Amino acid sequence: METRELVSEKTIGRLSLYRRLLSGLLAKGRQNIYSHELATLSGGTAPQVRRDLMAIGYSGSPSKGYEVADLSESINSFMDNPDGTRGIIVGAGNLGRAIMAYFEGRRPKLKIVAAFDNDPNKIGSEICNCPCCDMAYLKTTVAQMGISLGVITVPANRAQEVGDKLVDAGVTGILNFAPIRLHLPPNVYVEHVDLTTSMEKVAYFVQSNKDSDVAGA
Amino acid sequence: METRELVSEKTIGRLSLYRRLLSGLLAKGRQNIYSHELATLSGGTAPQVRRDLMAIGYSGSPSKGYEVADLSESINSFMDNPDGTRGIIVGAGNLGRAIMAYFEGRRPKLKIVAAFDNDPNKIGSEICNCPCCDMAYLKTTVAQMGISLGVITVPANRAQEVGDKLVDAGVTGILNFAPIRLHLPPNVYVEHVDLTTSMEKVAYFVQSNKDSDVAGA
Repeated sequence: METRELVSEKTIGRLSLYRRLLSGLLAKGRQNIYSHELATLSGGTAPQVRRDLMAIGYSGSPSKGYEVADLSESINSFMDNPDGTRGIIVGAGNLGRAIMAYFEGRRPKLKIVAAFDNDPNKIGSEICNCPCCDMAYLKTTVAQMGISLGVITVPANRAQEVGDKLVDAGVTGILNFAPIRLHLPPNVYVEHVDLTTSMEKVAYFVQSNKDSDVAGA
Repeated sequence: METRELVSEKTIGRLSLYRRLLSGLLAKGRQNIYSHELATLSGGTAPQVRRDLMAIGYSGSPSKGYEVADLSESINSFMDNPDGTRGIIVGAGNLGRAIMAYFEGRRPKLKIVAAFDNDPNKIGSEICNCPCCDMAYLKTTVAQMGISLGVITVPANRAQEVGDKLVDAGVTGILNFAPIRLHLPPNVYVEHVDLTTSMEKVAYFVQSNKDSDVAGA
């Protein structure tokens, strides 16, 4: 268990990418891969790939590289909870429903099992094969279904309240799409995905590119 | 123009967050804010807030802090293209449609103006007040409408091809949701949003939390 805790967030992020790349290669019948190839595909460097895989106790052979199927399986058993991880999503608007559709069936060991909303028109409906439940049942559902992960797709002004409710219910990891920093206890792992910032960064650098062209002309 | 180029990606990301926070404060009638308050709201530190704002040539007063409306306006004029930025989205599936719905009307100076897909059932339809067009018209549309930004929401195995087409058409900034690293010319700014990795990181650390509890028990 100690190995798990020594592995950094960035390494975990890259392992997640490696296994998707490996799964694509497996589907094409690929048997072996060198660290420099995995580096090219993942946009990293070969020493980094080797360090990441050593961190989970995996090493390849200098002559044949890594075995694709075996490496893929090792990453799975390192990353996945053998009993599976169950998550819920709070906020069944456009974004929430898209996230549910995106993740439906994507990973066998990671499932969103229910949505929550406070809109009476949504409560009781089914979204991507999941029930949409009343926020009033959040706490009991989390306890009964063994939910550990929450996805927040409510507007910014409701996100902190929803985060507090999720934590109070027993959730220990949150994927937050609301464009606001959540203040939660340090034992809760929070990953922010800020779509507006990502889009605005691209818009800024597009404009910046144009300015440099003009300046250089 | 030189100032723009000296500002880092991370600063741009934080400026994007600051202005959303400021806009929320403005709506509540707030007139002044200190750097430490903006730091608390944005999850950063006061010296970092001050450095970020100095980078765009803005400084507050030690006694009154920053003027919310004026600072907000300064960030806008620093970040936004005065003529507006027009973007398109390629891939009108669940995720693409959600992204369009999410950004519709969100920022006056940044608009998604068309979607592209190769599904005949989608081509010719309207999504969030935008036409869904045939991929065959990508290049002419980008030129005619002065598009500089592209959002990729196609599956991983089509993303590189779509990225190449966008760049060939003249797009210089890409927001890529496909879980694959794109290989594009260095003058093209690419921002990756990897929803699967974000979700899997949360799932991993949730599990890791549980292990530590067990180990500590």
